[in-house]
Amino acid sequence: MASAVVLLSGGIDSSTLLHYVCRTLGVKTIYAISFRYGQRHSRELKAAAAQAAAVGVCEHRILDISGFGDMTAGGSVLTNPDSEIPYLSAIPEADRQQPPTYVPNRNMVLLSLAAAYAEANDVGDIYYGAQAQDEYGYWDCTTDFLARINTLLALNRKDAVTVHAPFIDKPKAEVVQIGLELGVDYAQTWTCYRGGDTPCGSCPSCVERSNAFRKIGHDDPLT
Amino acid sequence: MASAVVLLSGGIDSSTLLHYVCRTLGVKTIYAISFRYGQRHSRELKAAAAQAAAVGVCEHRILDISGFGDMTAGGSVLTNPDSEIPYLSAIPEADRQQPPTYVPNRNMVLLSLAAAYAEANDVGDIYYGAQAQDEYGYWDCTTDFLARINTLLALNRKDAVTVHAPFIDKPKAEVVQIGLELGVDYAQTWTCYRGGDTPCGSCPSCVERSNAFRKIGHDDPLT
Repeated sequence: MASAVVLLSGGIDSSTLLHYVCRTLGVKTIYAISFRYGQRHSRELKAAAAQAAAVGVCEHRILDISGFGDMTAGGSVLTNPDSEIPYLSAIPEADRQQPPTYVPNRNMVLLSLAAAYAEANDVGDIYYGAQAQDEYGYWDCTTDFLARINTLLALNRKDAVTVHAPFIDKPKAEVVQIGLELGVDYAQTWTCYRGGDTPCGSCPSCVERSNAFRKIGHDDPLT
Repeated sequence: MASAVVLLSGGIDSSTLLHYVCRTLGVKTIYAISFRYGQRHSRELKAAAAQAAAVGVCEHRILDISGFGDMTAGGSVLTNPDSEIPYLSAIPEADRQQPPTYVPNRNMVLLSLAAAYAEANDVGDIYYGAQAQDEYGYWDCTTDFLARINTLLALNRKDAVTVHAPFIDKPKAEVVQIGLELGVDYAQTWTCYRGGDTPCGSCPSCVERSNAFRKIGHDDPLT
C-alpha cells in the first residue's frame, strides 16, 4: 500500500498506530488527520503534531469541528466543560458499556470525515486506533462497528475507502509493547481526560494507560 | 413520534421534508440542522432559516464544518471555489452515477453529525431528504445506503437513532407536488449550485428543479 490516512488523536493507541503504519506496514505516504471537536483541552493535539513530525507524514490536517462539542455537550462529560470527569471507580458496572465519557457518535463522525479526506486525495485506506478495551467499552470501537462501516463505505461507486483497525482485538498493554519496540516516544503522547499540566492519574483514561504500562513492567515516561 | 431531527439544506427536498415531518407526520418537536460545509454560497442557509421559521422548529442549528470544504476541494466542484460547475449536458452519461458535483462522503458526514445531535438530545429519529434522482445519482442517496447506515447506527448500546428518508423512492416532481399541497413557499428555497442573485437555470441542480416543476405543470415561484 502506497498511501493511507491515519486518525491521530495524540493518545497512545493512535500514536502507536501511526508508527506501525509507517514502519511495520511500510506505507510511504501518510496523511494524518486530527480533530478539534470540542474536547476539553488541546494538549492532545500538540502530542499529535509531535508524533506526525516524528514519522514524517506528508500532511497533518487538524480539522476544526468545534461546534460538535457544543452540540453534544448534553450527552457527554468530555465535550461539556461544566461537567466533572468521573473517577473510573465511580462508574457503575452497568454503565461501563457506554460510560459518561462516551461522546455521541464520535467515531462515526471522525471516520466519515477521514473517509472524505481519503477519497478527495485518492487514498483507499484509513487506519484508526481502536483497541480491545479492558475496563469499559464503546460500541464504536468494536469489530462489528468496523465491519458495518466498511459495508456502508463499499457502496461508493468510484472510490470506496476501507477502514482498518489493526489493534482492535489487542489489549492496550500489547499496543504499548508494539510501540516500545517501534521506538514510539510516549512522553510525546497525551491520554488524560482532564488535561492539566500533568496527568491526573485517576480518570478512566489515565487508569487504563497506567494499567497498560504496569502490565508490561515498563515505566510511563509521561508520569 | 414526539420529536425528530431534520437535515435542512434549504433546497426543495429538505424544505418539503421539514413541512412533511411537521404536518403530515405530526412531529411536535423538531430540531433542524444545517451545515456550513464549504459550499460555494450561503444563500441556501438563508432559505433553510426561512423554512425553519415557517414551521416553528424548537431549534435550528447551523453547524460550521467549513474546513470540510477545503479538505475535499480536490474531489468536488462544489467545494472547490476555483472550479467551474458543469452544465448537465456536459456531464458524460458514464459519469452521471458519480458526477463532478458529488462531494466526497458528504451525506455520511452530515448524517453522522445529525445522529450525534439527535443522540445528545434524546431524539431517536432523523429525517433526510434523499429522493429518487432522474438525471444523475449519488451512492449516498440510495435505499442501500439508508439500510446500511441504519445497520451501523443500530449498534449503539444505549440510544440508537434511526435515519428515515420518506422521499427516497419518489421523483422530484412528486416531492414538489407534496410540498405544494402542504403550502411550502418554494420562493424561499434555493437550489442553484452557482448561487448568484437568480438561479442560473443550467447547472444540474437547476435543470432537475425546473424539470420537476414543469412535469406537474406548475410555475417555479423562484424564477
